Amino acid sequence: MNPQALRGIRIVLVGTTHPGNIGATARAMKNMGLTRLFLVRPKVFPHAEASARASGADDVLAAATVCHTLDEAIHNCTLVVGTSARPRSIAWPNLGIRETARHCIDQGSHGDAALVFGREKAGLSNEELDRCHFLTRIPCNPEFSSLNLAASVQLLSYELRMAAGGDGGAPPECTDPDDPLATSAELEHFYAHLQSTLIGLGFLDPHNPRHLMRRLRRLYHRVRLTHRELNILRGMLTACGRHLDAGRHPPPPSP
Amino acid sequence: MNPQALRGIRIVLVGTTHPGNIGATARAMKNMGLTRLFLVRPKVFPHAEASARASGADDVLAAATVCHTLDEAIHNCTLVVGTSARPRSIAWPNLGIRETARHCIDQGSHGDAALVFGREKAGLSNEELDRCHFLTRIPCNPEFSSLNLAASVQLLSYELRMAAGGDGGAPPECTDPDDPLATSAELEHFYAHLQSTLIGLGFLDPHNPRHLMRRLRRLYHRVRLTHRELNILRGMLTACGRHLDAGRHPPPPSP
Repeated sequence: MNPQALRGIRIVLVGTTHPGNIGATARAMKNMGLTRLFLVRPKVFPHAEASARASGADDVLAAATVCHTLDEAIHNCTLVVGTSARPRSIAWPNLGIRETARHCIDQGSHGDAALVFGREKAGLSNEELDRCHFLTRIPCNPEFSSLNLAASVQLLSYELRMAAGGDGGAPPECTDPDDPLATSAELEHFYAHLQSTLIGLGFLDPHNPRHLMRRLRRLYHRVRLTHRELNILRGMLTACGRHLDAGRHPPPPSP
Repeated sequence: MNPQALRGIRIVLVGTTHPGNIGATARAMKNMGLTRLFLVRPKVFPHAEASARASGADDVLAAATVCHTLDEAIHNCTLVVGTSARPRSIAWPNLGIRETARHCIDQGSHGDAALVFGREKAGLSNEELDRCHFLTRIPCNPEFSSLNLAASVQLLSYELRMAAGGDGGAPPECTDPDDPLATSAELEHFYAHLQSTLIGLGFLDPHNPRHLMRRLRRLYHRVRLTHRELNILRGMLTACGRHLDAGRHPPPPSP
């Protein structure tokens, strides 16, 4: 068991309605050795019911970071996995929950990993899912899949503990230490750069964007870009932008 | 997934104090496709709080078998596993919870398997543990191991579902059957198109290409592009190429 491996994991709850669920989440996390709770626009927090349901995990509640946006909560994360109860019309890249846990633990040397849980009734919006590199779905009875929020956190936290060797299993492997994964913030800059370039090229119509950016996000999230790869892609966009600018402002004719 | 495999599993709660925990247990079971709940001398049952916490798993509660003794609850079982939160002075034979789940599912052809959960505070007595063939302990933070009863049932029920094949095996990389993966030949066309565009942009020097194309190949191979994604990328290259051509052959000045 490597408790250090769990320190890089953020549990992010988006728009939670019932404070009791926040408390029960803190308890579920602490039971499995997780400590970093992020709350994006909780409906009520702090609240007596949250503290009551935390029953002993008050330290996790007290240290929780309350954010205005999901972007704040996942800032600097190199892996962001959303949880989803229902199948989506456009397929997001999927991971099983055991695989998700392994990937999150493997992050250790790169940066933080975030597991994002949506609202009790409505889950995550498409815009929030756009921020996620992968989606994971907890396997459950298709005829009764109303898994409670804290129960979902409990199951994923347990799998994280197992992946961290909590059952005495093998320690996780590690990737190229000289080329770390790009962070969420770097990826967002890239997407903004890509979007403005595509508009400049006339390939993306800002008045009728359809699903173009969502599809491209999905592609680049899935590949898990390294820092160096991201720089190459941004270099390509910059080269393209120079040509667009030159076309827009042609150099003065030589005398 | 073989739902039949879960029918031979009994969840046995011994001496439960809080009816809410019985309700939450029913919900946790039904979420994972388990249906057979046995209650040995529950303090209060039935109870409004049990029904409230079951939130939709009332059928599991209504079908629960209330027993006077643990022996009644495990009658005819060919495997009985007790759950324990604390280490015992005399070592019972132990199984990990994943192993426990596998053994329980393997019972199928032999008879029922019972998972026995003790009282909220006191767990199982030594006499009750004597009835168990094995003991299992859910891995958790040794400094905060107060796992709620329903949370323990949730975790074991989940492992049972996984052992019964409930994760449907490894998730496919591309979940959309209408959008197959790109073929090698399509990828080669894309790489050639990408390379000529990058040369046109002045980003790739054909006399000193370094490892640029190799890095880009690695990136796009890794992501396993779908046919539709490849078309989007090629569309972007074509749009870029049109601008390059326009720059090279500027339209005649308007009169």
